[in-house]
Amino acid sequence: MPEHLSKQYDLELETIRTRVLQMGGLVEQQIRAAMDALQEGDVARLERVIADDAKVNALEVQIDEDCQHIIVRRQPAASDLRMVVTVIKTITDLERIGDEAQKIARVGRDLCQGSRMPAPRFREAAKMADTAIAMLHRALDAFARLDPTAAVELAEEDVLLDQDYSSELRAQITFMMEDPRTISTSIDTLFLCKAIERIGDHAKNISEYVVYLVKGKDIRHTTLEEKKRESLGDAAQ
Amino acid sequence: MPEHLSKQYDLELETIRTRVLQMGGLVEQQIRAAMDALQEGDVARLERVIADDAKVNALEVQIDEDCQHIIVRRQPAASDLRMVVTVIKTITDLERIGDEAQKIARVGRDLCQGSRMPAPRFREAAKMADTAIAMLHRALDAFARLDPTAAVELAEEDVLLDQDYSSELRAQITFMMEDPRTISTSIDTLFLCKAIERIGDHAKNISEYVVYLVKGKDIRHTTLEEKKRESLGDAAQ
Repeated sequence: MPEHLSKQYDLELETIRTRVLQMGGLVEQQIRAAMDALQEGDVARLERVIADDAKVNALEVQIDEDCQHIIVRRQPAASDLRMVVTVIKTITDLERIGDEAQKIARVGRDLCQGSRMPAPRFREAAKMADTAIAMLHRALDAFARLDPTAAVELAEEDVLLDQDYSSELRAQITFMMEDPRTISTSIDTLFLCKAIERIGDHAKNISEYVVYLVKGKDIRHTTLEEKKRESLGDAAQ
Repeated sequence: MPEHLSKQYDLELETIRTRVLQMGGLVEQQIRAAMDALQEGDVARLERVIADDAKVNALEVQIDEDCQHIIVRRQPAASDLRMVVTVIKTITDLERIGDEAQKIARVGRDLCQGSRMPAPRFREAAKMADTAIAMLHRALDAFARLDPTAAVELAEEDVLLDQDYSSELRAQITFMMEDPRTISTSIDTLFLCKAIERIGDHAKNISEYVVYLVKGKDIRHTTLEEKKRESLGDAAQ
């Protein structure tokens, strides 16, 4: 009987993990759809992305409640508790990534309806989006496989993504100075890139929760070197 | 003896609540210090604000651990559990408000070192900051007094703050078009105002966790009307 109960409990934890991955998949879809629709100038599809953020929010609320039911009914300890707390934190970041995808769609709608930004400049944002989506995918994969090593890669990739944003910022300022008529478009492009850059931050957060989950160490707010030590478990380093 | 234990437990919960309010006070100080130093062009003070964000982060990690110890040792149920979950969520928003204060200080440092923005334009950002700080203060007050009614006020104030940001955005675009030499300064000003606008969002989040804590209802992602019904408990409305 206890064994059966414990199987039930494992099933509940497994269900929550699966739901988180479903939420992550939906959020990834939202970013991809927003970027594709923006490139195709498909306003109707951008509107759908904006509307579908409600699905992401509903999933967050649902998983949140599931976690609390588990805490109450199962009184998890040790690694089970870390799993539940990790899920509570992870879905907050996923929900905010969903908000950024919605922002991308809103800005995209303005860009499609107003003056389009010159294609070559837009390729930068698309490149950044590919990096951010890959980071999110890697973070969810790390969550699924309980792989703490992703945190270091993602912290490094996040630095590069921030650099991409900064150079895009400088580039747009130059365009605006050369031709003030492009200012609104440049500002929209910057907001677009900022939203993408923030997605990278959230993906990095998720990968750090996985380190906490697996190693029991909280590596948020630590240097890259410290993250390496903790997540790779190389105390010698 | 159980009574003593329960007193101990109450004390632990009370300690966590107090720590959250201390963290909130520190974050409020950080925003205020960043805005004052920016107005005074006090770069050294801006550097201190940037460095002091580490204190905010340390508090978050500490309170987070305290919450998990309570879950493990006390296995809280019902309202106690809601309190712990509310704290875990609240400190995430407080930590992000700390990040925004740090951003304000960074932009402020650039503005002080580069060309200052014209004083009249800066007054807008200062006005927005006053609103955001008042919202944070109100949210922390609601958390301290377990007052769910703040959520409605804050949702309404957040709409106004977003409008202030939008009009500032339009104003800055006009300035940039009139005089392209002001573009870098205008972009910095926009980032400054965006950081302030996000502080309002986080304050709103915190007030919504209080509704969940007091009423057991999750009102995130609901309309203002729904928030009114839930937080004011006026089913007739």
